[in-house]
Amino acid sequence: MLSAEIIAIGSELLTPQRTDTNSLWLTERLNSIGVEVRLKTIVGDDAGRLEETIRDALKRSDIVITTGGLGPTEDDITRQISARAVGRELVYHNPLEADLRERFRGWGREMPEINKRQAFVIDGAEVLPNPNGSAVGMLLKLDGKFLAIFPGPPREMRPMFDEFVLPVLKENSGGVTVSHRVLRVSGMGESAVDEVIAPIYKACPNVETSILFSRVEIEVHLTARSEDADEADAVLAELSEKISDALGHAVFATNGETMEEVVGRLLADRGETLSVAESCTGGLIGMRLTEVAGSSRYFLEGAVVYSNGSKMRALGVAENILVDHGAVSAETAEAMSAGMKGLSVSDHAISVTGIAGPDGGTDEKPVGTVYIGYSGPKGTRSVKFVFPGDRELVRWRASQAALDYLRRQILKLS
Amino acid sequence: MLSAEIIAIGSELLTPQRTDTNSLWLTERLNSIGVEVRLKTIVGDDAGRLEETIRDALKRSDIVITTGGLGPTEDDITRQISARAVGRELVYHNPLEADLRERFRGWGREMPEINKRQAFVIDGAEVLPNPNGSAVGMLLKLDGKFLAIFPGPPREMRPMFDEFVLPVLKENSGGVTVSHRVLRVSGMGESAVDEVIAPIYKACPNVETSILFSRVEIEVHLTARSEDADEADAVLAELSEKISDALGHAVFATNGETMEEVVGRLLADRGETLSVAESCTGGLIGMRLTEVAGSSRYFLEGAVVYSNGSKMRALGVAENILVDHGAVSAETAEAMSAGMKGLSVSDHAISVTGIAGPDGGTDEKPVGTVYIGYSGPKGTRSVKFVFPGDRELVRWRASQAALDYLRRQILKLS
Repeated sequence: MLSAEIIAIGSELLTPQRTDTNSLWLTERLNSIGVEVRLKTIVGDDAGRLEETIRDALKRSDIVITTGGLGPTEDDITRQISARAVGRELVYHNPLEADLRERFRGWGREMPEINKRQAFVIDGAEVLPNPNGSAVGMLLKLDGKFLAIFPGPPREMRPMFDEFVLPVLKENSGGVTVSHRVLRVSGMGESAVDEVIAPIYKACPNVETSILFSRVEIEVHLTARSEDADEADAVLAELSEKISDALGHAVFATNGETMEEVVGRLLADRGETLSVAESCTGGLIGMRLTEVAGSSRYFLEGAVVYSNGSKMRALGVAENILVDHGAVSAETAEAMSAGMKGLSVSDHAISVTGIAGPDGGTDEKPVGTVYIGYSGPKGTRSVKFVFPGDRELVRWRASQAALDYLRRQILKLS
Repeated sequence: MLSAEIIAIGSELLTPQRTDTNSLWLTERLNSIGVEVRLKTIVGDDAGRLEETIRDALKRSDIVITTGGLGPTEDDITRQISARAVGRELVYHNPLEADLRERFRGWGREMPEINKRQAFVIDGAEVLPNPNGSAVGMLLKLDGKFLAIFPGPPREMRPMFDEFVLPVLKENSGGVTVSHRVLRVSGMGESAVDEVIAPIYKACPNVETSILFSRVEIEVHLTARSEDADEADAVLAELSEKISDALGHAVFATNGETMEEVVGRLLADRGETLSVAESCTGGLIGMRLTEVAGSSRYFLEGAVVYSNGSKMRALGVAENILVDHGAVSAETAEAMSAGMKGLSVSDHAISVTGIAGPDGGTDEKPVGTVYIGYSGPKGTRSVKFVFPGDRELVRWRASQAALDYLRRQILKLS
């Protein structure tokens, strides 16, 4: 099996605020063609350490991938230092400069002179075009080893890796493929999920199973290795089905889909429409729903009703409901979803009202208290949650619970 | 100034699902006493690579910190490999075994024999007690350098570092402190910012300046080191002011504040209110504004008007505007912000309508075309952008441009 090392370059990745995340995506990709990542290094804009790191990596590993440090400014040193590490010259690439000038003209600007630095490439390297940015990548073959150099922004690096480097590495990786599948589970904790499914995955030792906790859901990762991709996929499909049967409706995705994609597909399949009324989530649910391209087929509109006045004005929530029960109550949540459904003439409406914190909690309704309302063809109902966590976490958990409540209501109707 | 390297040990940290995060906390701690982190390595349970990594780190850096690999099982190799890397023996530490047996008895269990491995320590190392787990840490002084070895779980590592290692390093760090400041810039590219401010920061070589591109803005990071924290802060304040003067209103934050915090503070200071009408951003602007705790003081409400029907119904946009100019037009953007301001009775209203993609673009209005409307005390206006990037990026850039447009309008009024 081929081994790989990943080097993330940039002094900002050595601060307390930021770290490398590209390597997670790259590892998943490399694993999928049977390549194992053995070491990761994060190094700053420090010529000596970077040169040593690249040199050592090429001694130890078959594949070395660097990300970052290809920008136009002086602290972007990857080009010259990697050339030095492999003992080659940097050469000026005229077509690249022309291409850069054209790109800047397309943005209605003249190319600043410092961007000329981005037209230098390592002698003998294959130039990897970057459709999403001004820094090209490079691929070098050195005595049967590979050095691949990418810009840091994920949206630039990822398509370049997939198009130009993955196929080359796959050809050299000896034919073992790794299949991977992710199930997503809502409304259950990590240990509860494990208790239910441990007997199932332990009976299937040729699949590597791990249970991971993300901020709003539990993920079950299944991994199988085989020389026959179809066989690995079939093994995963069978295990995935057994796990889904055991967990029931708590499993909302068996192929890594997000909650907003799952809900969107349910609505699109039925030709039904949705509207949303948000208080403490402030637009987060609308944002998540509209992240899905084509969501205009089913998403009509949303109201972010942060003040009491706006709950009355925009949704027709009666003043006495707000006075008698408070803005954070089952009654208000239900009046919000019913008002939204009626005004927007949608098939379904969901609403959220709660206390995201850090202030505003009381003994009776502590921070994290959230009411979710639903109005649909069969009427209006609501559910209460008390979420642990800080403001951001409470808001994300509330948005997930609202979308999951909608999902369960739609499934119940069918 | 002392330099440090951090080595995270464990094969699970080389999977696509997990990565080292201990180093972020450690970096913050080390920076606070003037120690700079120059390199981070993540290495698996691989004896050869780990030994080489520790040896190289001790050659390059004054302080080497490892986390992980101290458990009782066979894949926990940090003890024996770090001993080998520094050329010392592992010695059996009787009091540690007694302590471990006691600890297990406290949990009502007999110590498994395998845990005896945790009673071996590197010859000459100071043993660092672990009140929260069974793996002790170690601190070695080697020719004026330090090797500190910790277990991986943050709740074990952190108190051990603070109690036993931080004071020792502080004594040796010469009393230098590091100050850090982040300026944020909107509406300019990375190279344009660099062209303007390079002469300024180059005249100030005792401050380390780096220019970073994030998805919606440019960040200018300033770092100064000094024995006198007040002096370092003063140097940064002066440079920050010079850069702000040169870039003008494009600098929206000089202390790392986010755009939504800056806009919120402008509104709160003036006692003024805001409402938002969003089409292609789908709730993102509302979500960002309400991420700020206390935003209910100035944020009244938002409307996510995804369909044409909802633009008319919820905001009173006239049908003939939509028919004559299209939903993505200056006229619609202005009608949206004017409608929102009137209905919500806010002091300011902003609106966004555009084509986020991937579909829906035309020759005349390609994907990325976004109109932003503003209505305030002096009337209504709008501005057009064509943003590069995919759906997510267009939406984020549109949300940033809208908040920035609002910011500039408020500043113009005062």
